[in-house]
Amino acid sequence: MTNQILEKVNTIPWQERPANSTDVVWRYSKNPIIKRDAIPSSNSIFNSAVVPFEEGFAGVFRCDNKAVQMNIFAGFSKDGLHWDINHEPIVFGAGNTEMIESDYKYDPRVTFIEDRYWITWCNGYHGPTIGIGYTFDFKEFFQCENAFLPFNRNGVLFPEKIDGKYAMLSRPSDNGHTPFGDIYLSYSPDMKYWGEHRCVMKASPFEDSAWQCAKIGAGSVPILVDEGWLMIYHGVINTCNGFRYSMGSAILDKNNPDLVKYRTQPYLLSPQTTYECMGDVPNVIFPCATLHSIEEDKVAIYYGAADTVTALAFGHLSEIVKFTKDNSL
Amino acid sequence: MTNQILEKVNTIPWQERPANSTDVVWRYSKNPIIKRDAIPSSNSIFNSAVVPFEEGFAGVFRCDNKAVQMNIFAGFSKDGLHWDINHEPIVFGAGNTEMIESDYKYDPRVTFIEDRYWITWCNGYHGPTIGIGYTFDFKEFFQCENAFLPFNRNGVLFPEKIDGKYAMLSRPSDNGHTPFGDIYLSYSPDMKYWGEHRCVMKASPFEDSAWQCAKIGAGSVPILVDEGWLMIYHGVINTCNGFRYSMGSAILDKNNPDLVKYRTQPYLLSPQTTYECMGDVPNVIFPCATLHSIEEDKVAIYYGAADTVTALAFGHLSEIVKFTKDNSL
Amino acid sequence: MTNQILEKVNTIPWQERPANSTDVVWRYSKNPIIKRDAIPSSNSIFNSAVVPFEEGFAGVFRCDNKAVQMNIFAGFSKDGLHWDINHEPIVFGAGNTEMIESDYKYDPRVTFIEDRYWITWCNGYHGPTIGIGYTFDFKEFFQCENAFLPFNRNGVLFPEKIDGKYAMLSRPSDNGHTPFGDIYLSYSPDMKYWGEHRCVMKASPFEDSAWQCAKIGAGSVPILVDEGWLMIYHGVINTCNGFRYSMGSAILDKNNPDLVKYRTQPYLLSPQTTYECMGDVPNVIFPCATLHSIEEDKVAIYYGAADTVTALAFGHLSEIVKFTKDNSL
Amino acid sequence: MTNQILEKVNTIPWQERPANSTDVVWRYSKNPIIKRDAIPSSNSIFNSAVVPFEEGFAGVFRCDNKAVQMNIFAGFSKDGLHWDINHEPIVFGAGNTEMIESDYKYDPRVTFIEDRYWITWCNGYHGPTIGIGYTFDFKEFFQCENAFLPFNRNGVLFPEKIDGKYAMLSRPSDNGHTPFGDIYLSYSPDMKYWGEHRCVMKASPFEDSAWQCAKIGAGSVPILVDEGWLMIYHGVINTCNGFRYSMGSAILDKNNPDLVKYRTQPYLLSPQTTYECMGDVPNVIFPCATLHSIEEDKVAIYYGAADTVTALAFGHLSEIVKFTKDNSL
Amino acid sequence: MTNQILEKVNTIPWQERPANSTDVVWRYSKNPIIKRDAIPSSNSIFNSAVVPFEEGFAGVFRCDNKAVQMNIFAGFSKDGLHWDINHEPIVFGAGNTEMIESDYKYDPRVTFIEDRYWITWCNGYHGPTIGIGYTFDFKEFFQCENAFLPFNRNGVLFPEKIDGKYAMLSRPSDNGHTPFGDIYLSYSPDMKYWGEHRCVMKASPFEDSAWQCAKIGAGSVPILVDEGWLMIYHGVINTCNGFRYSMGSAILDKNNPDLVKYRTQPYLLSPQTTYECMGDVPNVIFPCATLHSIEEDKVAIYYGAADTVTALAFGHLSEIVKFTKDNSL
Amino acid sequence: MTNQILEKVNTIPWQERPANSTDVVWRYSKNPIIKRDAIPSSNSIFNSAVVPFEEGFAGVFRCDNKAVQMNIFAGFSKDGLHWDINHEPIVFGAGNTEMIESDYKYDPRVTFIEDRYWITWCNGYHGPTIGIGYTFDFKEFFQCENAFLPFNRNGVLFPEKIDGKYAMLSRPSDNGHTPFGDIYLSYSPDMKYWGEHRCVMKASPFEDSAWQCAKIGAGSVPILVDEGWLMIYHGVINTCNGFRYSMGSAILDKNNPDLVKYRTQPYLLSPQTTYECMGDVPNVIFPCATLHSIEEDKVAIYYGAADTVTALAFGHLSEIVKFTKDNSL
Repeated sequence: MTNQILEKVNTIPWQERPANSTDVVWRYSKNPIIKRDAIPSSNSIFNSAVVPFEEGFAGVFRCDNKAVQMNIFAGFSKDGLHWDINHEPIVFGAGNTEMIESDYKYDPRVTFIEDRYWITWCNGYHGPTIGIGYTFDFKEFFQCENAFLPFNRNGVLFPEKIDGKYAMLSRPSDNGHTPFGDIYLSYSPDMKYWGEHRCVMKASPFEDSAWQCAKIGAGSVPILVDEGWLMIYHGVINTCNGFRYSMGSAILDKNNPDLVKYRTQPYLLSPQTTYECMGDVPNVIFPCATLHSIEEDKVAIYYGAADTVTALAFGHLSEIVKFTKDNSL
Repeated sequence: MTNQILEKVNTIPWQERPANSTDVVWRYSKNPIIKRDAIPSSNSIFNSAVVPFEEGFAGVFRCDNKAVQMNIFAGFSKDGLHWDINHEPIVFGAGNTEMIESDYKYDPRVTFIEDRYWITWCNGYHGPTIGIGYTFDFKEFFQCENAFLPFNRNGVLFPEKIDGKYAMLSRPSDNGHTPFGDIYLSYSPDMKYWGEHRCVMKASPFEDSAWQCAKIGAGSVPILVDEGWLMIYHGVINTCNGFRYSMGSAILDKNNPDLVKYRTQPYLLSPQTTYECMGDVPNVIFPCATLHSIEEDKVAIYYGAADTVTALAFGHLSEIVKFTKDNSL
Repeated sequence: MTNQILEKVNTIPWQERPANSTDVVWRYSKNPIIKRDAIPSSNSIFNSAVVPFEEGFAGVFRCDNKAVQMNIFAGFSKDGLHWDINHEPIVFGAGNTEMIESDYKYDPRVTFIEDRYWITWCNGYHGPTIGIGYTFDFKEFFQCENAFLPFNRNGVLFPEKIDGKYAMLSRPSDNGHTPFGDIYLSYSPDMKYWGEHRCVMKASPFEDSAWQCAKIGAGSVPILVDEGWLMIYHGVINTCNGFRYSMGSAILDKNNPDLVKYRTQPYLLSPQTTYECMGDVPNVIFPCATLHSIEEDKVAIYYGAADTVTALAFGHLSEIVKFTKDNSL
Repeated sequence: MTNQILEKVNTIPWQERPANSTDVVWRYSKNPIIKRDAIPSSNSIFNSAVVPFEEGFAGVFRCDNKAVQMNIFAGFSKDGLHWDINHEPIVFGAGNTEMIESDYKYDPRVTFIEDRYWITWCNGYHGPTIGIGYTFDFKEFFQCENAFLPFNRNGVLFPEKIDGKYAMLSRPSDNGHTPFGDIYLSYSPDMKYWGEHRCVMKASPFEDSAWQCAKIGAGSVPILVDEGWLMIYHGVINTCNGFRYSMGSAILDKNNPDLVKYRTQPYLLSPQTTYECMGDVPNVIFPCATLHSIEEDKVAIYYGAADTVTALAFGHLSEIVKFTKDNSL
Repeated sequence: MTNQILEKVNTIPWQERPANSTDVVWRYSKNPIIKRDAIPSSNSIFNSAVVPFEEGFAGVFRCDNKAVQMNIFAGFSKDGLHWDINHEPIVFGAGNTEMIESDYKYDPRVTFIEDRYWITWCNGYHGPTIGIGYTFDFKEFFQCENAFLPFNRNGVLFPEKIDGKYAMLSRPSDNGHTPFGDIYLSYSPDMKYWGEHRCVMKASPFEDSAWQCAKIGAGSVPILVDEGWLMIYHGVINTCNGFRYSMGSAILDKNNPDLVKYRTQPYLLSPQTTYECMGDVPNVIFPCATLHSIEEDKVAIYYGAADTVTALAFGHLSEIVKFTKDNSL
Repeated sequence: MTNQILEKVNTIPWQERPANSTDVVWRYSKNPIIKRDAIPSSNSIFNSAVVPFEEGFAGVFRCDNKAVQMNIFAGFSKDGLHWDINHEPIVFGAGNTEMIESDYKYDPRVTFIEDRYWITWCNGYHGPTIGIGYTFDFKEFFQCENAFLPFNRNGVLFPEKIDGKYAMLSRPSDNGHTPFGDIYLSYSPDMKYWGEHRCVMKASPFEDSAWQCAKIGAGSVPILVDEGWLMIYHGVINTCNGFRYSMGSAILDKNNPDLVKYRTQPYLLSPQTTYECMGDVPNVIFPCATLHSIEEDKVAIYYGAADTVTALAFGHLSEIVKFTKDNSL
């Protein structure tokens, strides 16, 4: 598969587990890897997505500017750690539609399918919904029809077609600080019309797993492992001082990914460091992408921290899978 | 067109405008035409849809039972005024999917397109969304894939394909007593996958037209007139004592029905009678269907009253169109 | 048993089921039996309780005055239909405590146990909680310790001790228009200290029985029938225009009344008449007492209507029991 | 005083107290005196103000049109019962300012001071505030500077200067369905600049007088009686089904009208009739004006009912004063 | 008294007031004494209780696990600073009831009375209420009937019987992030049935002491001093960015502890350090226990910080008492 | 002009822009300049105002005490960096009124006009409104009539009369954590009566400038520059974890200051440092005063940080003006 070939070429970022740690997922010691002011106009750079590209990596980055307008920018890196992010946001041409209105763009994900890099993001069209675009080269970009009616957030494509159709996870929302949120799956024959909507997994009961009891949303593009699709997702608890976002993992059935086989009862990572607990929105860990190598059994998870900076965590795929199975909700 | 042929065969219900009235739309003097206990199990019968059928009329009725469970029932009438409603709710077989889950069904609309009667309704699938079904004979019914992700209400199909595709109006919602609501349009090549979502019209500013300033939703199936698609819709104001639902009309462009050509600034009908102001939910007028005759220049509008009973109002199509143009927002 | 002896002496109010009705519970044709201004000071008289007493009946009545201060008044009747209500509220002496603070009193229930008439009500002590009092003669009254900490409403005593202890149903609340509410059971050896709190039944899922999906509360004093304790209760739905209160029934296990054997999925009575739908708080049916005759298989249910007047409904005990079993949630 | 001279000329509307009534204030038997559709464009006519004028009476009426836009209209009557209301809203010229923006106008009051009729109303200027205008003849109207910053409602002028300054009662609000509201007094040397703001009276504790425990607002122009300024006001309770508006009275100190001498604990009138309990906003009594005769000891109170129609109630001034003193909060 | 004997045996943790400080209560310089990951499974360890036990100290600790499930664990320490906390939560056997359901357990307190250590905690039984248990040895534990109906939090027992009865402070709550909260006192003859509920102290007016104006709750077990019962409590202000929890003290009457003799207007400690301001719930100081020596005039206050870690503060009892008297609200 | 003369005398605090910075406004490297415990009683010192005075500077400081009571204190400094703040709050004598009630005082501003220093603050009079006072010497203080009815915050006077009248910016509010807020202008001939209220600028649309999309309020006293009045203001975004306050600038027309000529789309400063992000209310930058020198083209901006401490930022006036013009919303 094309994607796996790419993985072989690129050496993903990596740092061994600290000596004193038994955690399944551990933080990069030099976090955050992208600071809030990494480009001149930026107020914050977070909730961003990366993929292997050519000899290194490319990415689509959420850079809120100092007017706190949300937009997405292309960027490039040789090692996945140091990033050159364009100083101007991505400009889209018309893809499968002329209607490419966008009041704002945020929280992008990127996936390579067949012949191109597909980008999904939260697109402002009379409220948040899921925007879709693609690029072949991270230079020229094309915007397609929005996938869904408003209100929706966290649209994440599977990296290959399932039963001949594109498949996307998303989280139906409302027009504000949505206090609810579950993960759904939808299919499309053509990236234009979507249907066969299925509820995949819901926020958990408070008693069972409180960190994910208010809302949940898909994070990074699912990774195909032996057990199925490994999905990193975020879960939210509504504390008396606001929402706290943590990270967990789930394994979905390979052929029927609306079936959840396993799902972590404990979180993999919760906001505990200063850069996760202090910033524009405190106590947020928000994963949007991974770089991974099946062969090397490694994954590097990119996540937004405190809605302000971009950070990195590492793990062994096999350990995450085992942990997910052994600690399933 | 098949639909127009049917219209010729059936004599729609009619009552002349009262002598002392200058209203564009006037109530039937024997309202409500369907009482809350018209079938043994019913708590209320309202927000229901009717179409010409064979020698007379058929319909799909929202009958909440005395446990206040919401479901839809088939019914038949010779004159459109007296209705025989089945005592058991509609049972659906599998249409274009085996996934026909439904926690509840309410607020149906019915439309004849090409070869069959399509039914849309608010379908309970992890919250309200738009269910789709069809029948050829109002005896056997088939349920299709839900059109959209939750949360949505008030899905109304156009009575013919537009540019070769099915077209549906709907109102994205949230999972409760949604305090917002605008009308969108979506297209489908096959009644299974939907896309090309467009915002059609929004709740109005309070200063301009307060009766429709909180939310709006499509009502009856649009009627094709010379000026475009005549749509009866409901508008809602959020008073200090709750929501009040009234009825207005809009004319959408024939070929691009996401373009609003005219839209009534005044309401056509607001809750003023006892059966509209007193009931399970006071102060509600909720139109779901019309019977009309282009040739006779008549329309009979069926509407739910106070979420309790079904009522009828009349008007001349040409007058409603003129009123909509002359009093456009 | 003393209570049954009393029942034999008094002829409870009764009116046969209307000819055209198949309802299990039907309204008195001369409702409301107590109007809002039945005593000079009253703004409204509703949510009141009656018992057999001497040759006729006595009662404790919630009479809000024209300052809309809530208090309870004694009253007497020969036939249960025409009531002489005292013009001054009940004055309590010290019962098992000197602490008989009461900012307000409302929604009384009355029960004869062993040697006296026990009264429970919603008592204002830093918010609503359950007040307890007793009388031997409806002339002299004594107030005891509040049963519970605030916040609580709808305290209803069982008419006899269970396993040697007093038993009370109640509904924990908050300090406002509580949007939740379930029925609990508590025991006391002495009417002073309470414990062994058990959850009895909860508001139902919306899909199963929407009229009781927001909150429920015990209504009248449970009646011991062969199947167990027959309890009339109220259930509430939160509509977009406020709360609607209806009436249902449940049968609790005779010896372990925290076990619900049956519970009506449909309501027995919902607000449908003008005096139930129009008043200080529209759309409220709130049962607080019954008069019943096991031998004659009759029950007369007293309920507050629209928080304004007092009304009466009738039924056959055996039919209500059968209906509860046959239509159990 | 000019105003008293006028009172002698005009015979105010009157109807004796019903034989069976002991109420201090009683309704007109032919209520409502102005129906919702009294002019062709109107959806509702309510919360309106009248004054003696020439041989009869003039008034300023809140007529919401069928777009539910709020505006004020002039009207005239010979007997105070039958009113000719202009079909077009009042058009204002520039008074003491060129800035006469007005997104909407509602709830007018009218007062004659010195040489002209002053009108105050709720004026839409970036939200509700108090608009001021005047007329000499009810034909030509002039608009002045708004009295206050947003957000405010229920501005009511005293009918004469106090200590050489204009004096106005008002109720600071917020930008929605304000859940709070107290009555304040402000002074102006020139009807342009306002200051010396004083809190006059506040919503009452729930336990003391629940009908006025959520918010209160000045109603009609105060009437100078021996005891001071007699003010009819509205009080509001927030029930579980929305706000209920009732009417009370207070007596303010003649020279220091921020001092409340007496204030009714019971209401004078609460929503009890169909036209008060059913309409666009159920359960509203909202007094805006009186016609009165000190000599004849009569007052006719005009009030909006259910935000839909205009109604009338009567009383003897001396009785109302005595009732206010005897039943003071 | 047994308790005082114990106090003599054990040397409580202590650190002198910093040289530059005049604070009545000061922090331990090595705070936090228990980190969030002190046991392998823990997400956070906070809001925990300790007592003198054998040669050293024992405690019951709130350890939320990484699924953010709340439970209580036993632990032991020689010096009160370094703690060995069991890796498995406490398992309770049946105490005075078989009904020992518990959806979750949090915020424990521990008190020695007569012959055993009583533990109270917030127990999940259809919402939060007060759970009661006991142990003789911190190895075997027994659970009793819940003290109260839901919803309640912060149940704190007095360390000896008062007038022959057990006495407990608690804070009635609702089922969410309760925005209100006052302290009540209840009595029990037998730890099973509770009554004689009294309001002890309420949240203060904003103007008088804003740090405790939203809600208050009992903290540590009251300490008997000459002036009465010294109670450390928490007070909460609702800022525009959430709740902030601080610590104060009050002195209750020795024999009638529902009488508040003194209560600090200023806080004793408010969130100011990083470990109090940053964590799972920022800006929280939550005292649950003290170790104290009357003879040495010392108290060590254990408190949860930021709902994440456990910290320690010190003071002289006599100074705290004096401060409470001198700065009483 | 007197004010300019003063400016010449005093050397305002200054620190050059850091070498690596291109920011228009930069922080003082020794921030915070006033710590939370700078006087013995203080819990926090923030949102305070300073002016040139005699040889140095004087100021009025918001010092919340440890009961979190809000009050204002006078203070003095030679260099504007080191401040001696009185240990007792300002005591006011009667200015133009005897009515100088004040439940609390916070967020002061100070302006020299004509012959004295005027102080405005948020004054507690039945809720927050704008208090006014003056001093000649910062020793004796006089309180005047409140400018407006409640509810209002952030009253800021212009430093000279405009068209012969005093002019004040303010932000109408409600009685809680107001979720809205726009800036208005009012005039007064005499500092007692206020009128000619004009809306100056509103919170921005989310899409255009999210940091100021929830509410805005005037900050420091406007500075007269060639382009008009330079106003430093605060803007607020309502995140899912509470409000975040940032700083921007606007230029108002010199003669008609209700006309906004320019207004920054980006913020000038947003909460990013620990002392801005951690404290009693995290993520708050709240400017209340400047010291500036037109001749030297310098401004020192004083702002409260995290509602806890006082900090300082610097800029060149000409650069801020240019930035405001070049980046205007």
